[in-house]
Amino acid sequence: MASAELGSSGALLRVLALLLLPGAAPAFKPASIGWSPSSTVRGTLTASDYKTLYYTQKTDHFGFDEDSSFKQRYLLADKYWNKDGGPILFYPGNEGDIELFCNNTGFMWDVAEDFQAMLVFAEHRYYGQSLPFGADSYADSKHLNYLTSEQALADFVVLIRFLKESIPGAGNSSVIAIGGSYGGMLAAWLRMKYPDVVVGAFAASAPIWQFEDLVPCDSFYDIVTNDFTKSGNGCSQSILNSWNAINRVAVTDEGIQWLSSTFHLCCPLQGKDDIGYFKSWLTETWVNLAMVNYPYEADFLQPLPAWPVQVVCKFLSNPSLDDKTLLQNIFQAINVYYNYSGNTQCLNISQAATASLGDKGWSYQACTEMVMPFCADGVNDMFEPQPWDFKSYAEDCFKQWGVTPRLTWITSEYGGKNICSHSNIVFSNGGLDPWSSGGVTKDITDTLVAVFIPEGAHHLDLRFRHPDDPESVVRARELEIKYMKQWLRKTRSSL
Amino acid sequence: MASAELGSSGALLRVLALLLLPGAAPAFKPASIGWSPSSTVRGTLTASDYKTLYYTQKTDHFGFDEDSSFKQRYLLADKYWNKDGGPILFYPGNEGDIELFCNNTGFMWDVAEDFQAMLVFAEHRYYGQSLPFGADSYADSKHLNYLTSEQALADFVVLIRFLKESIPGAGNSSVIAIGGSYGGMLAAWLRMKYPDVVVGAFAASAPIWQFEDLVPCDSFYDIVTNDFTKSGNGCSQSILNSWNAINRVAVTDEGIQWLSSTFHLCCPLQGKDDIGYFKSWLTETWVNLAMVNYPYEADFLQPLPAWPVQVVCKFLSNPSLDDKTLLQNIFQAINVYYNYSGNTQCLNISQAATASLGDKGWSYQACTEMVMPFCADGVNDMFEPQPWDFKSYAEDCFKQWGVTPRLTWITSEYGGKNICSHSNIVFSNGGLDPWSSGGVTKDITDTLVAVFIPEGAHHLDLRFRHPDDPESVVRARELEIKYMKQWLRKTRSSL
Repeated sequence: MASAELGSSGALLRVLALLLLPGAAPAFKPASIGWSPSSTVRGTLTASDYKTLYYTQKTDHFGFDEDSSFKQRYLLADKYWNKDGGPILFYPGNEGDIELFCNNTGFMWDVAEDFQAMLVFAEHRYYGQSLPFGADSYADSKHLNYLTSEQALADFVVLIRFLKESIPGAGNSSVIAIGGSYGGMLAAWLRMKYPDVVVGAFAASAPIWQFEDLVPCDSFYDIVTNDFTKSGNGCSQSILNSWNAINRVAVTDEGIQWLSSTFHLCCPLQGKDDIGYFKSWLTETWVNLAMVNYPYEADFLQPLPAWPVQVVCKFLSNPSLDDKTLLQNIFQAINVYYNYSGNTQCLNISQAATASLGDKGWSYQACTEMVMPFCADGVNDMFEPQPWDFKSYAEDCFKQWGVTPRLTWITSEYGGKNICSHSNIVFSNGGLDPWSSGGVTKDITDTLVAVFIPEGAHHLDLRFRHPDDPESVVRARELEIKYMKQWLRKTRSSL
Repeated sequence: MASAELGSSGALLRVLALLLLPGAAPAFKPASIGWSPSSTVRGTLTASDYKTLYYTQKTDHFGFDEDSSFKQRYLLADKYWNKDGGPILFYPGNEGDIELFCNNTGFMWDVAEDFQAMLVFAEHRYYGQSLPFGADSYADSKHLNYLTSEQALADFVVLIRFLKESIPGAGNSSVIAIGGSYGGMLAAWLRMKYPDVVVGAFAASAPIWQFEDLVPCDSFYDIVTNDFTKSGNGCSQSILNSWNAINRVAVTDEGIQWLSSTFHLCCPLQGKDDIGYFKSWLTETWVNLAMVNYPYEADFLQPLPAWPVQVVCKFLSNPSLDDKTLLQNIFQAINVYYNYSGNTQCLNISQAATASLGDKGWSYQACTEMVMPFCADGVNDMFEPQPWDFKSYAEDCFKQWGVTPRLTWITSEYGGKNICSHSNIVFSNGGLDPWSSGGVTKDITDTLVAVFIPEGAHHLDLRFRHPDDPESVVRARELEIKYMKQWLRKTRSSL
C-alpha cells in the first residue's frame, strides 16, 4: 500500500516546519509522495483490472444551505465477485489520488479470489479528481469547509448504500472496510460510526491515538531513532551530532555555501532562514526512511534498496568526526534515499519524495481536525529538541488557511481511547513504523484486536505478497484474513 | 414528560397542511404546545431544585469556516449525586425550551435519589435560549444551517466532556441518556454514535423508524383511529363521516359561516381555502387527544380529564346523524380538548395547544433531515385520504425555508433498521401512542430491548409517578430502572 503515509508524513513535517520557524509563513512545501508501480513488486495492475466510475455526492452532508453536488470517483473490480453473497472489500481513500491506493493495496488484490469479493476503492473528497468545487476547491476556507473526515465517511456510507441498491446481488454483500494510514483511520471510524454499513474494518498502520495526550508526543521520533540505532553502530548518534554540526557550519555565509554545494542542492540556501527548512527536510528524510524500511527493494516514496536504513547507516558509523566530514557522510546517507537510481542531478529541499499526492489537502486537515502533537528532546531521540507548542501551531494554521485547529475535537468525535464498545476491527502495526506510536498495538476486546509485525514498516501487510516478506508479515496477513472471514461467517449465520 | 410531542406533532401537522393544500404557501402555523406544571401531578419543581448554567459551544462542529460560538443553556441538579461514582442522568433536549423538559421528566426526578444521580438537562440548539445567532437565528437558511441532529449530538458530547473534566468527581460518573419523543431519538442516537460518552440510553416514545418506508406510512393514523374506535361506539366512524359533512356544508358561503359560528372560531373562515386549514386543525386535535390519552387528569397539551378520548367519544356515539347535527357533536367533542377549564372564549384554528415551544425550528428540521412520511386512506383510518407525496412536500419546504429535504439521509446516518451492532438501549412505547408506529416495539438483541406499555399514551413512563398509573407503566418503569442499573453495574465491574 503506497502513498498513505504521504499525507501523514506531510502533516508531521508541517508541524516541524512550523516549530522550527515560529512566526515564519510556512513557505516550506510539505512533502508530496509520488508512487509508480514497481517492477520488483508482484501483481501490478492494468487498466482493465477495474472500472473507473463516478457518484454524485452532496457537498455538505451535515447542512442544507450549501446544496451543491460533486462527482466522487471510485474504482470497482468485480472479476472474482460472487454475486450470491460474496463480500465487498471497500477501501476508504486517503489524502490522495485513489488510483495510487488502488494500485498499491496489493493485499486486497491478493485475497479477492479467495474471498470471491468485489473490490471498491473510493476517492476521498478534495483529492484526486473528487473536487467539490473543481479548480476552486482550495481557493479559500469557505471552499475548503467541507474537507473533514466526517464528510468523507458520509460519502463512503452514501456510496456503499448506492452500490448495494443499484448493483444486482450487492444487497446481500457484506462490506468490510480496509485501509492504511489515514485510510486505516477512516476504515476504523467507518466501523465505529456506521456499524450497519460495514461488518468490520481492517485498519493497517492507523494512528487513531496520535491526538492530544493519548500517547506521549515523543514516541514517534523515538521509534525513528530506534530504527537507526538498531541498523548500524553510531548511526543515530551521527545524525544527532549532525544538527549542531550544521549550526556551527552555517554561522558563516561561506559555511552556508559549503552546505549547498556539499548536499548538491538544486537551489542554494539563501541565508540563515533557510537552515531551518534544510534541517526540516533532513528530518523528513530520516522519518521517511524509517517508514519505508522494507525488507525488499521497493519503489514507494523513492526507489530504494532492501532494508534501506541499514544501507544508509553504513555511511554513519562514526559520530565523532569533525563537522564537515560528518556532514559529508550525512550527504552520502541521504543520497541513498534521493539517488538510489543514480539519475538524480541535484537535491530539492522542498520535496522529500516524488509526488502526486494531496499535500495541500492534508495540510488543511492537519490545521483543522487532524492536530497530532509531536515533540523531540534530542536526548532520547536523534532530533533537535522541539517542544509541542499548540499556540504557535494554531497561529501558523490561521496564517496559512484562515482556520483555527481544534485540539480536542477528534477525540470527542471518535472516542479517544474509550473504544471498547465497538467491535470487529483489526488494527495492525509494524515495529519499525514510526506511526505505530499512535496505533492500537494491544488487543482491547475479543473483537477489537491488534496484530503486531515486529519487522514491519508502514503497513507492510497491505502490500502485495513478496518472496522476501518476513515470516511475521505472512503470519499477520493470515490472522487478518482469519478475522475477516469470522466477521463474514457471523453475519451470514445471523441472517 | 411534556412538550416532546409538540414538535413531532407540529411536524406531522405541517405534513398534513402541506398535503391538504398543495401549492399553497404554508401560512398555517404548526401547533405550538405549551405546558404548565399541573397541580394534579406529584413532584412539581421549584427554582431551587436546579441550577441554570451556560456552556460555550462551537456553532459548527463539522466545519471550520464558521468559527463562531454560542451559549448553550443547561440545567443541573446534584442534590442526590454521589460524587464518588454516582451516575449522571443526561436529558438531550428536544425541540423546545429546556425548562419544559426539565419540569416534565418526572421519571428522572423520581429516581435521582435511588441512583444517587446528578441530573443534567441540556437545551437543544436553536430552541429556548440556546440560539446560535440570537434573534437572527431563524433569519434565513444560512443562519439555520447549523440546526441538525448531528450538531445537537455533538453539543451534548462536548458538554458531557466538559462536565466530566470540570466537576470534581464527575470524571468517574457514568452517563445515561434519557429522553422522550425527539429527545428519545437523540438519546438513542447518542448511544449509537458516541458509546464512549453514554453507557446506555433510555429512549421513550422515540419514533426512530418513522422514516422512508421503514414502517407503513399509514400506521400512525391507524393507531389514532384505534384509540377512538376502542373508546366509544360509533366514535371513529363519526369522525370519518365528519369530513364529508364539512365538505357538503362548506359548499355555500352560508355553510362556511355556519361552521365558523358552530365551532366558535375566533377568526371566521374566509372561504373555501380555509376549509383545508380547518380540517387540518381538527385532524391535529384528534391526534393530540390520542397522544395525551392519559389515565389521570393532566395538563399537558391542554388541561384535560382522565382518559380524555373516552370523554370526547361520549359526544360521538351516532355517526348516522344529518351533517349539521353530526358537526355540532364534533364541536362538543373538541370542546373537551379546548375548553375543559370552561374559560375559553373562542377557538383558534392556528393553534391546537397552548404554546411556548419551537414549532418553527421543528418545521425547519422536518424540511431538512426529519422527513417523516405519513398517509391516510379513509378506509382503515378515520381521516380523509391523503397519499404521501414527497415531491409536493419538498416543493413546499423550499418555498418556506429555501431548503430541499433529504428523504434518505436519516436512515443512512443512523442505520435505519440495521441497528443490531449497538447495545444498551431501552426503547419504550405506549400502545395508545400514535408515535409507537415508528418506534422499536420488539427486542432486537439482549441489550437493545423494547418495553411496551399497552395502556400508555406518549411517553407516559417519563412522567412523574401517579396514583392512577396503570400497572403496565409501573412495571415498565421497574424494567427501565433494572436495565439502567445493569449498565452501570457492568461499567463499574469493567473498570
